[in-house]
Amino acid sequence: MEQVSSYIEKNKERFLEELFSLIRIQSVSASTDHKEDMVKMAEALKGMLLKDGADRAEVFPTKGHPIVYGEKIIDDSLPTVLVYGHYDVQPAEPLEQWKSSPFEPEIRDGKIYARGADDDKGQLFIHLKAFEMMVSQNLLPCNIKFMIEGEEEIGSENIATFCSDYRKMLSSDVILVSDTTMISLATPSITSGLRGLSYIQVEVEGPSRDLHSGLYGGAVLNPANVLCEMIASLKDSMGHITIGGFYDDVVVPSDAERQAMALRPFNQQEYMNALDVEALSSEDGFTTLESVGIRPTLDINGIWSGYTGEGAKTIIPSKAYAKISMRLVPDQKAEKIADLAIAHLRKIAPQGVKIRAEYLHGGEAYVSPLDTPEYKAAERAYEDVLGHKPIPVRSGGSIPIISTFERILGVKSILMGFGLESDAIHSPNENFPLDNLFGGIKTALLYYRYYSEMKKG
Amino acid sequence: MEQVSSYIEKNKERFLEELFSLIRIQSVSASTDHKEDMVKMAEALKGMLLKDGADRAEVFPTKGHPIVYGEKIIDDSLPTVLVYGHYDVQPAEPLEQWKSSPFEPEIRDGKIYARGADDDKGQLFIHLKAFEMMVSQNLLPCNIKFMIEGEEEIGSENIATFCSDYRKMLSSDVILVSDTTMISLATPSITSGLRGLSYIQVEVEGPSRDLHSGLYGGAVLNPANVLCEMIASLKDSMGHITIGGFYDDVVVPSDAERQAMALRPFNQQEYMNALDVEALSSEDGFTTLESVGIRPTLDINGIWSGYTGEGAKTIIPSKAYAKISMRLVPDQKAEKIADLAIAHLRKIAPQGVKIRAEYLHGGEAYVSPLDTPEYKAAERAYEDVLGHKPIPVRSGGSIPIISTFERILGVKSILMGFGLESDAIHSPNENFPLDNLFGGIKTALLYYRYYSEMKKG
Repeated sequence: MEQVSSYIEKNKERFLEELFSLIRIQSVSASTDHKEDMVKMAEALKGMLLKDGADRAEVFPTKGHPIVYGEKIIDDSLPTVLVYGHYDVQPAEPLEQWKSSPFEPEIRDGKIYARGADDDKGQLFIHLKAFEMMVSQNLLPCNIKFMIEGEEEIGSENIATFCSDYRKMLSSDVILVSDTTMISLATPSITSGLRGLSYIQVEVEGPSRDLHSGLYGGAVLNPANVLCEMIASLKDSMGHITIGGFYDDVVVPSDAERQAMALRPFNQQEYMNALDVEALSSEDGFTTLESVGIRPTLDINGIWSGYTGEGAKTIIPSKAYAKISMRLVPDQKAEKIADLAIAHLRKIAPQGVKIRAEYLHGGEAYVSPLDTPEYKAAERAYEDVLGHKPIPVRSGGSIPIISTFERILGVKSILMGFGLESDAIHSPNENFPLDNLFGGIKTALLYYRYYSEMKKG
Repeated sequence: MEQVSSYIEKNKERFLEELFSLIRIQSVSASTDHKEDMVKMAEALKGMLLKDGADRAEVFPTKGHPIVYGEKIIDDSLPTVLVYGHYDVQPAEPLEQWKSSPFEPEIRDGKIYARGADDDKGQLFIHLKAFEMMVSQNLLPCNIKFMIEGEEEIGSENIATFCSDYRKMLSSDVILVSDTTMISLATPSITSGLRGLSYIQVEVEGPSRDLHSGLYGGAVLNPANVLCEMIASLKDSMGHITIGGFYDDVVVPSDAERQAMALRPFNQQEYMNALDVEALSSEDGFTTLESVGIRPTLDINGIWSGYTGEGAKTIIPSKAYAKISMRLVPDQKAEKIADLAIAHLRKIAPQGVKIRAEYLHGGEAYVSPLDTPEYKAAERAYEDVLGHKPIPVRSGGSIPIISTFERILGVKSILMGFGLESDAIHSPNENFPLDNLFGGIKTALLYYRYYSEMKKG
């Protein structure tokens, strides 16, 4: 550990400059404006992998944004760890809410502020630097592979095909993913489950053009009002989702499991203070943590219709749109849920409007067992670096690809998250504490050691 | 009439060029970007009034956009007609739906296509050219005054003060307004009533920043969902508005009046075809025409929240907004209705969100009597030019200032509309048929003659 700490200390400035160079590339996967940045980003990662000690690094084109692959194979008889990460980031909008420029990282109060500082450039960088250190200090105890995609924030549409096409190249004993949070450095935790996601967009069309709201108001169905009514009807007063068949495949964890989950420290007042809200709203019969961890939900992610500029415009809009996402739990299937939701929307739409709806993306929920060497090595690494055994946590977030990996590559993933909830990922002023970055490098390094030892014997 | 027709024929090209020069000035009152265009527009009208024969023309600054006044007083013993119009236009957005540029007028199939071609530059221009002709051909039978404002589309906020301040200058026997529609040239009509308007904007704030919809979805009230639920609850299944006290001051016309209104030709299938909708939606117990003519209503004019760009962004938005307008009938009061609506929204908002709401603008409904010289002169002028006695129609639109004129200046207005419903005012591809423009000039000219004769007795 001495050796590790002093290596980090000596190379700190260089590490930060390298991470910042990755953050400065505006790799926003959702916007076609950034197509070239995505390629630039993939090439930068390939260069970094080779410089850090990979024997081989390659950029694989896909139908969307490219995938970066790298590896260092030292001995076929040793275990192989496949590190998965993503180099794409969420859009930075609303820009006016950022205190410093989203793509020009700034360190304030011991935290890096930038889009991607945590999700996932910062967390991915932890493994790149652990790898560099193990190679340069002759500490590498296993084979390492890297698979880094550019479409995680828009549904990882092409990585399943990539996994199928290169199943042999990607063969491994465990997949290591750092793209989640822990409770805190004082109360470390490991994500043992993720929710799935089913994301749709719906358009309600009324009259074929915007109408004068005076001349027509009262006689013509207003698509914006109709969309609001349809959305309002998707949940009942208990917080249950009314889409027919929505709960059919939901697995409710056992009472024992729910009791274990309830041990997780949680202060409702602090939680509300952090969000600046005076009340929370959970599904009837479930706690706040259960509502995000083991229950499915439905949220409007965006809605728009009519005149949204300054002042007043008196129209009945021709069209109204919403982006609606549903978080899923085992064993709900993303596409089936999208189909149910779209069929339901069509069913409840009143005569006089036309509905167009499409499934944008999604993926299934995931649960990791806690009694495997893969999980136990992580537990020990966290405990060594942070002084406490990490708590397993069922997170509400989604990394749909994790269940896909299991299905295609036949390998379980370990979600070694180093982020904090206060990192504001997907939000303005995303940040990543330096302690989590450098602590993460130590923890990752120990993971490779402990996992290799446990597998040997 | 010969003289009039030949004058129009001879000057057609010049008339169009003059109207086009007014349309080209982008006098969008709702946007602060066009502040200079508003001044330019006012100056252009002042110049035109003087050129057309006014003894006096002046641009009066207000707290908002300027008001143009002009007059020609030929004999104090003759009646005085005050022409009201507005030079401001609605925003042209969505621009991509225009077939030709909104501020570069184009004539296609005998219609002028441009923002303001009808509302209200085209219709106002009718009176300017009738005035020019009467002065130049020695046909002026009365005194004429012009009051042209630049804030009609944003609530005419400063004209009431202007009317109070200049009550004497504005004294008249009738106010003539061309800012409405007729059924068709074959079935002329005169607007005998207008609805009022109460326009509010509401903001629902949940968490103080956008949240990751996975990590928080299910535990936190989503302001976009909440706004939809609140809006959906504003109408019941019968189409009645649920805001407490909303209907308290509503006057329902007598059965006889409703029977007379029902004589207005109306083809529901053609109406639906023109809008490209398969069904209409009226308040229970009222016909389509009654729903727009004599009943109040509530419409979303704009709604926005969260991510509205390309692709998917998985957030719970921090805020959600809606622009909501209510059309009013006698004797509802715009400010009272706004107060009731805002109080209702606050009352129904769940704990966990904050509501901010403001009254943007509004005005009262108006009804014109049909047995006065002011109305009868109009009836005769239409009949002479178009061959049919015009039908009196209660319109669903609002010109809130009309009831203000009555209150402050003590004078009734005659709504001599020359537009058609197919003119698509407030919409992309607004247009104004040349027949209506030139027919309008003839009709206006006859109005001044008949009205002066009738007043003389």
